[in-house]
Amino acid sequence: MRVAIAQLNFLIGDFEGNRAKMVSAVRQAVSGGASLVVFSELSICGYPPLDLLERKEFITRCGQQVEMLASEIDPGTGVLVGGPEFNPGSEGKLLYNAAFFLHGGKIRQVFRKSLLPTYDIFDEYRYFEPNRDFSILEFGGKRLAVTICEDVWDEQPFEGTFSRSRLYITNPLEELVRHEPHAVINLAASPFSHQKMQVKQSIFTGKATRYHIPFIYCNQAGAQTELIFEGGSMAVDSRGRVAERLSFFREDLKVVDLDKLSSGQFQAAGHPVPDRIGMVREALVMGIRDYFGKMGFTRATLGLSGGIDSAVTLALAAEALGPGNLRVLLMPSQYSSEHSVSDSVQLAENLGVQYDIVPIGSLFDRFRETLKPLFGELPEDITEENIQARIRGNLLMALSNKMGLILLNTSNKSETAVGYGTLYGDLSGGLSVLGDVYKTDVYALARHVNSEREVIPDHIITKPPSAELKPDQKDTDSLPPYDELDRILEAYIERQQPADRITGTGLDKRMIEKIIRMVDQNEYKRYQNPPILRISSKAFGVGRRLPLVARY
Amino acid sequence: MRVAIAQLNFLIGDFEGNRAKMVSAVRQAVSGGASLVVFSELSICGYPPLDLLERKEFITRCGQQVEMLASEIDPGTGVLVGGPEFNPGSEGKLLYNAAFFLHGGKIRQVFRKSLLPTYDIFDEYRYFEPNRDFSILEFGGKRLAVTICEDVWDEQPFEGTFSRSRLYITNPLEELVRHEPHAVINLAASPFSHQKMQVKQSIFTGKATRYHIPFIYCNQAGAQTELIFEGGSMAVDSRGRVAERLSFFREDLKVVDLDKLSSGQFQAAGHPVPDRIGMVREALVMGIRDYFGKMGFTRATLGLSGGIDSAVTLALAAEALGPGNLRVLLMPSQYSSEHSVSDSVQLAENLGVQYDIVPIGSLFDRFRETLKPLFGELPEDITEENIQARIRGNLLMALSNKMGLILLNTSNKSETAVGYGTLYGDLSGGLSVLGDVYKTDVYALARHVNSEREVIPDHIITKPPSAELKPDQKDTDSLPPYDELDRILEAYIERQQPADRITGTGLDKRMIEKIIRMVDQNEYKRYQNPPILRISSKAFGVGRRLPLVARY
Repeated sequence: MRVAIAQLNFLIGDFEGNRAKMVSAVRQAVSGGASLVVFSELSICGYPPLDLLERKEFITRCGQQVEMLASEIDPGTGVLVGGPEFNPGSEGKLLYNAAFFLHGGKIRQVFRKSLLPTYDIFDEYRYFEPNRDFSILEFGGKRLAVTICEDVWDEQPFEGTFSRSRLYITNPLEELVRHEPHAVINLAASPFSHQKMQVKQSIFTGKATRYHIPFIYCNQAGAQTELIFEGGSMAVDSRGRVAERLSFFREDLKVVDLDKLSSGQFQAAGHPVPDRIGMVREALVMGIRDYFGKMGFTRATLGLSGGIDSAVTLALAAEALGPGNLRVLLMPSQYSSEHSVSDSVQLAENLGVQYDIVPIGSLFDRFRETLKPLFGELPEDITEENIQARIRGNLLMALSNKMGLILLNTSNKSETAVGYGTLYGDLSGGLSVLGDVYKTDVYALARHVNSEREVIPDHIITKPPSAELKPDQKDTDSLPPYDELDRILEAYIERQQPADRITGTGLDKRMIEKIIRMVDQNEYKRYQNPPILRISSKAFGVGRRLPLVARY
Repeated sequence: MRVAIAQLNFLIGDFEGNRAKMVSAVRQAVSGGASLVVFSELSICGYPPLDLLERKEFITRCGQQVEMLASEIDPGTGVLVGGPEFNPGSEGKLLYNAAFFLHGGKIRQVFRKSLLPTYDIFDEYRYFEPNRDFSILEFGGKRLAVTICEDVWDEQPFEGTFSRSRLYITNPLEELVRHEPHAVINLAASPFSHQKMQVKQSIFTGKATRYHIPFIYCNQAGAQTELIFEGGSMAVDSRGRVAERLSFFREDLKVVDLDKLSSGQFQAAGHPVPDRIGMVREALVMGIRDYFGKMGFTRATLGLSGGIDSAVTLALAAEALGPGNLRVLLMPSQYSSEHSVSDSVQLAENLGVQYDIVPIGSLFDRFRETLKPLFGELPEDITEENIQARIRGNLLMALSNKMGLILLNTSNKSETAVGYGTLYGDLSGGLSVLGDVYKTDVYALARHVNSEREVIPDHIITKPPSAELKPDQKDTDSLPPYDELDRILEAYIERQQPADRITGTGLDKRMIEKIIRMVDQNEYKRYQNPPILRISSKAFGVGRRLPLVARY
């Protein structure tokens, strides 16, 4: 039996568009000799639909679309499509997260998800009742165990001080292997994390090895607001080798032969996971492209400061949207160094991006005059720094409003963590591109961008970072070097280690505690962040929920 | 047996402070003749601790604090205190949401929550494993069924197009009544909703009537960031009558006689729920007071526009913080009417609040000059309106930064819903006071505030609402009257009705669809809202999670 893995990029709620893609994929699969086509989790509506799942008409439409799909495709081909299903029982949550098996123009069988991830960015128990009955799909002379994403993650292999190997009291695979299936099919919507690529692969290769059964894993590709799904679907043979892998960060369709997977006849050719920073770069580019494409936007703006963050953001945006769709502002003040402007001009010209230079000195002076009656002889402080950042925010938003450009936020994860940034100033924007990228990785991205040719002027990469909001300011005036800072932040944020367990950073305890206190105290700023493209295992935003008002 | 209901206001994570309050409450209860004291859900740490529950040392500290509490209180008194418990099993979530029974200086018994709300603002399945074993507390010659909040909500009585009467497949009360308990004890953290006060009471009176058992319900009081817990704990007798009710919106402790509750000897004197708007007012005042008090802030600012929203926000803030802790700005532009300033001055003087008048005309002119090279002869549009709003935001934040004041946001729910408001302008602030209050209720609040004396100048209440961002602007230029708008919004947001089921508003279908489209299209603005004090059954913020990028 030949099985097609159809890895598509869906727009949530765009039923017509999603269905049309699926119809076309089935046609392509059939012409490739496939008798079974597998789509990803909740593919009929796109994942994650969030509280749209609480709308009865949304669920009803999903059901109608699945039936329409069944009637539109070749009746001889079997199709597994993900979608929400009304719980036919009178108790429990109203929905199941289901996989519909289509054949002969109809829905023939329904399989339901048993393990509902409700951690980090996942909220599946908010909507779905877990499945407790385990049945098998018999089709084309094969017994197939149909699972949905987390169902094969009964063991949670992630590191962390507070992780748990067995998060669930049921184990769907153990139930399903009793049926002696010829293969396990997994419809997934598994978001990208640059720290988890090896782990994700080992889940499938490990299970295949343990049970001596091939695994067919179909992930979705594409970004859904902040969540990035890398694709990278796989067929793993019964000896636990990656026999086939689909593209990363784009749609793809491949047909695999189940018998060959079962007999281990594949030439398993390594199929290595691409390099980490290269994947992060592709993830962010796709994140920008899908945010704009799916929203119906084409053009963006941002403020070029002369620093590394706005430079990398611009380079990635140019890759995603095309330089002709970008228009940026340089907004020097009296504290800006000359090279900030010249480096930015060079960058914009390297990329072919339209730019304007709008000095903010006279606006800043006018603000200070206006506030003089209130502030009197009080000394300058952070207030005046913030006023400048908010003048820039106002100018960028004015350009955005007038020209129909979306403002991209340029803050990185390190400064977002410790609260370096001005609410309503440089923290503004419709989408944060680097908000999940630590400063050290921003540099790595810059070098990656420059690997073909010098897009980002070298001086932007080599000069010491500065906010340039007061005379001769440097980031290191108040922070440790970024490589040390990032190690502390990653231990505290991604691995949730308390201060006294963060070691090996070369920093003393007092500095570590100071940094953690800064992270905690700036929760209120992050509450108002734009959506942040998520590339790590713990991003700021919806996957990290801490009380603002608390003592900890 | 006499039972004390100890309704306290906790600061999340403030173990020393929370425990000291409890020790003092036990002392007071004992002197009132109580042999059992009941605290609220997760009282040792305060509810909801959110992802602090993912930190091992946080859970360990909770356990230590419960043990310290046991050793500090009178050993002859029984105490039920809520806290997280490590799941001793090797499978399932790491924690239980537990009630610890303390007696004789030790933890004697542990009861675990079975029904874990995971909807709206609740995420309990994110952290906790549901209980499946049902045991009874035997103490002082009584059998007591110990439940935690949702455990008694096996039936969900809320209206809605997509609600479900039986959300859970287990029913803890049915299990527990087999033990023939003398009373049901409920440790709760049940947030305020002005639409749910009667329903909440009827849960307890209904269950007591059905099972002929008294119910003791202990809720927490106080606000936790956006969530407001009204207190209003109750003792319900075996005939289903409210025998005793604790205060709303403040700490309270009352001792009730279980034998009298069982025999129905109480003089059940009605105990009506206070009037709706009065409760909303108290809720918001407590919300402001706790946000500031628990954060360690004392002083606030806001922009007084001359409109009803900022006027009501100021009146409530003055009630919560004292007028001496407020300092406000009047920031007229060329489009401001004269009465906007004079009404605002009158209001500030009525309240005794310090104010400054800072005209923004010259700043606005300077922004237009600065942008002239970019904008050329393009006509004025929403851009210029937003520039004004962002100038005001910058001035308010500058005052906030320089003087250590917290900016209160003054937007109401109606305009937040349809996107009337400027990101980084009037949508700025540390806390949104009225973001869950529809405009019609803002007027009702104004009248309530004025019921004793005219605090808010009558002209602010009677004049037609206007943003005053362009000449002769009125809200009704582009929106239906607020009473009609609010009926549509309430149907769509609180009751999740689709456009074609919203009837009886007197508005045509096209207008309803237009409004719903405005709500949908402005999700991106609400993503960056400050925390909104929640007073309804569906507030914008954490309880309403919709994808930004979607078609619906």
